[in-house]
Amino acid sequence: MQTTTDEIRDSMASSSWIRRMFEKGLELKRQFGEDAVCDFSLGNPDVPPPGTVRYALESIAVAATKPLGLGYCPNAGIPAVREAMAKYLSRQQQTDLQPQHVVMSVGAAGAMVSFFRAVIEPGDEVVVPAPYFVEYGAYCGHFGGKLKPVPSLPPTFSPDVAALRAAVTPKTRAIIVNSPNNPTGCIYSEDDLRAIAAIVDDENKRREREGGRAMFLLSDEPYRAFAFDGASVAPALPLTRWCCVLGSFSKTLSLAGERVGYFAVNPAMPGAEELVAAVTLTTRTLGYVNAPVIGQQLAAALLDETVDLEIYNRRRLMMAEALKGAGIEFELPKGAFYFFAKSPVEDDLKFVDALLEEKILVVTGKGFGFPGYVRLSCCVDEKIIARSADGFKRAMEKFR
Amino acid sequence: MQTTTDEIRDSMASSSWIRRMFEKGLELKRQFGEDAVCDFSLGNPDVPPPGTVRYALESIAVAATKPLGLGYCPNAGIPAVREAMAKYLSRQQQTDLQPQHVVMSVGAAGAMVSFFRAVIEPGDEVVVPAPYFVEYGAYCGHFGGKLKPVPSLPPTFSPDVAALRAAVTPKTRAIIVNSPNNPTGCIYSEDDLRAIAAIVDDENKRREREGGRAMFLLSDEPYRAFAFDGASVAPALPLTRWCCVLGSFSKTLSLAGERVGYFAVNPAMPGAEELVAAVTLTTRTLGYVNAPVIGQQLAAALLDETVDLEIYNRRRLMMAEALKGAGIEFELPKGAFYFFAKSPVEDDLKFVDALLEEKILVVTGKGFGFPGYVRLSCCVDEKIIARSADGFKRAMEKFR
Repeated sequence: MQTTTDEIRDSMASSSWIRRMFEKGLELKRQFGEDAVCDFSLGNPDVPPPGTVRYALESIAVAATKPLGLGYCPNAGIPAVREAMAKYLSRQQQTDLQPQHVVMSVGAAGAMVSFFRAVIEPGDEVVVPAPYFVEYGAYCGHFGGKLKPVPSLPPTFSPDVAALRAAVTPKTRAIIVNSPNNPTGCIYSEDDLRAIAAIVDDENKRREREGGRAMFLLSDEPYRAFAFDGASVAPALPLTRWCCVLGSFSKTLSLAGERVGYFAVNPAMPGAEELVAAVTLTTRTLGYVNAPVIGQQLAAALLDETVDLEIYNRRRLMMAEALKGAGIEFELPKGAFYFFAKSPVEDDLKFVDALLEEKILVVTGKGFGFPGYVRLSCCVDEKIIARSADGFKRAMEKFR
Repeated sequence: MQTTTDEIRDSMASSSWIRRMFEKGLELKRQFGEDAVCDFSLGNPDVPPPGTVRYALESIAVAATKPLGLGYCPNAGIPAVREAMAKYLSRQQQTDLQPQHVVMSVGAAGAMVSFFRAVIEPGDEVVVPAPYFVEYGAYCGHFGGKLKPVPSLPPTFSPDVAALRAAVTPKTRAIIVNSPNNPTGCIYSEDDLRAIAAIVDDENKRREREGGRAMFLLSDEPYRAFAFDGASVAPALPLTRWCCVLGSFSKTLSLAGERVGYFAVNPAMPGAEELVAAVTLTTRTLGYVNAPVIGQQLAAALLDETVDLEIYNRRRLMMAEALKGAGIEFELPKGAFYFFAKSPVEDDLKFVDALLEEKILVVTGKGFGFPGYVRLSCCVDEKIIARSADGFKRAMEKFR
């Protein structure tokens, strides 16, 4: 007899190639030793958290054994943390936010799922520039939403604004922007962001006249701090009153496992209060209940800090050298910590396999809705990147 | 224009009486001072966590600033924690569990939502003895499941096994048991549990012959450690191979805000491995990603400890005195930390209001699918219970 649903069974089958890759990696590491394998497949930030994490945790430890020291907090977050976040996001987003515009969440992922639960009706569409973080599909799919990917423009992978506009229908409930982008590392220009916000505004004006539920601009910003070569990431929240922002401390503070993120809404949005109440409700009813209280306190204590971003910058430059030396085509990413490099053959799985033979692990572009490319993550030590250079060359020679 | 869905808007409206009560409580506390109000409405464990929480957190602090010290862990949990949990649950459930039978979760709530996402098809029914923790409805409702409450037998609120059997249809995907029970404090006898497990086994035998997906016994056990007067809580996992168990450390270690729980499956279940893989997948795709790593480590370090349960026992006996003194009908709970007391009038909201006038906050039985009763939580200091005794008397006088 079947234990799971057909849909979940299909999901397991379709994600099994990622699993195969993961298992292949484990096998290689077992066979040749951890150090022999160049694993660029994982986005698990390995740069140590700031040293102050230790002292912050020690302070939390002292208070933890008081009554309610680690008890439930309000579903939207610890009041003092929401207050600190409102100030922090007000500066970052150049928008005057109050604590009641912020909900603390179980990572950026938890924020997005809570948001979709609050707004998605079955059949709703969510427009997203491709390539994209593949879990977006599941996040809205749980509630009957459907992702509508719109290819971005290689080689920079800036968004195709005209195509995004053309993709909007009366069923479109949101456009997701993710800048700096996973997997491309592209930082969207302020002009592009404005143009995308205008799509949302224009559509909402039409809906105000002709009926229909609101459409949102959803800015997913876990990589906001990761901007190099003097690039800046424009605030998204002020671009349209229909904007929601979400993010996390997973990458900026290397706290990914502790699951702390946030959701914030433009205070000028009509119905902003109801939306925040709805996201607070779904945070509860989806079983998150509240963002982990230790993580919330840690994040609040370290709001003005980040991990050493220069480490990621050095890796980025070193990875560029390694790829260039092998003749692999790529655009130097200005943001995040990924490279989205062109496969020398149309079927990028063949390239993935050739790299595997060199004990180099990367992720197929198919995993991001954009075949013909592979994603490489810089969440590894410089010496591993240095060691991979020859392997890249040998793999490329197979396609000459 | 509408921001949220109709369904979420309805949920917000229907939970607004709880909110009104919460706000009434805040108002009373503001007006008369925190100490003047006897708030028995909240199940937020206020007994301090064991002192070792502090030392465990300090150890975690030292390791936290290493690379990946607080990074992502596998979606099913930190391997060492799963291993410790498998041993712990093997003893507790008298069933030989391996780490691959356990998934760490964002509280028991996160475990249940992940489970329902893995198994519920739209239209599926989930049978539950009433009164019940009202969020169960939302947990399965997110995915089109429907709760089917079956009244338990007052005054003890032991489950009505015959009625549960009669409630099962080909659409039934699970029976939830929650013992010790929220809100009644009832500990189900081993005989009752066996009889409920037999319903599941009988139905699955029929389905094996005639077709259909499996039906599960889902044992929700966050209060397992809370058993008084020498009562014992029988292990549920061995009762049927179709049993899944979930629980948390929210109550036993007063860690509710840190969101750590677990899901475990009977290894003899046909398809157990697929079910665990599915729950691991949904843990990821629902945005939990993994249970908070600090909480996981804390729980693993304190597996053999609990808060001081004698504090809850003393409160229980004191609450019994206070209710008895006022002539309120109740069954002395053997488990958990709640009283489910009979309202002196049919409409228990009238009783709730009369208690409010005495600055005593309780929750209407309607909030648990069982009107005519109110729930009182013992998550408050003894002196508050003592102080409430006269208020109970005065409130009861109104109904004579």
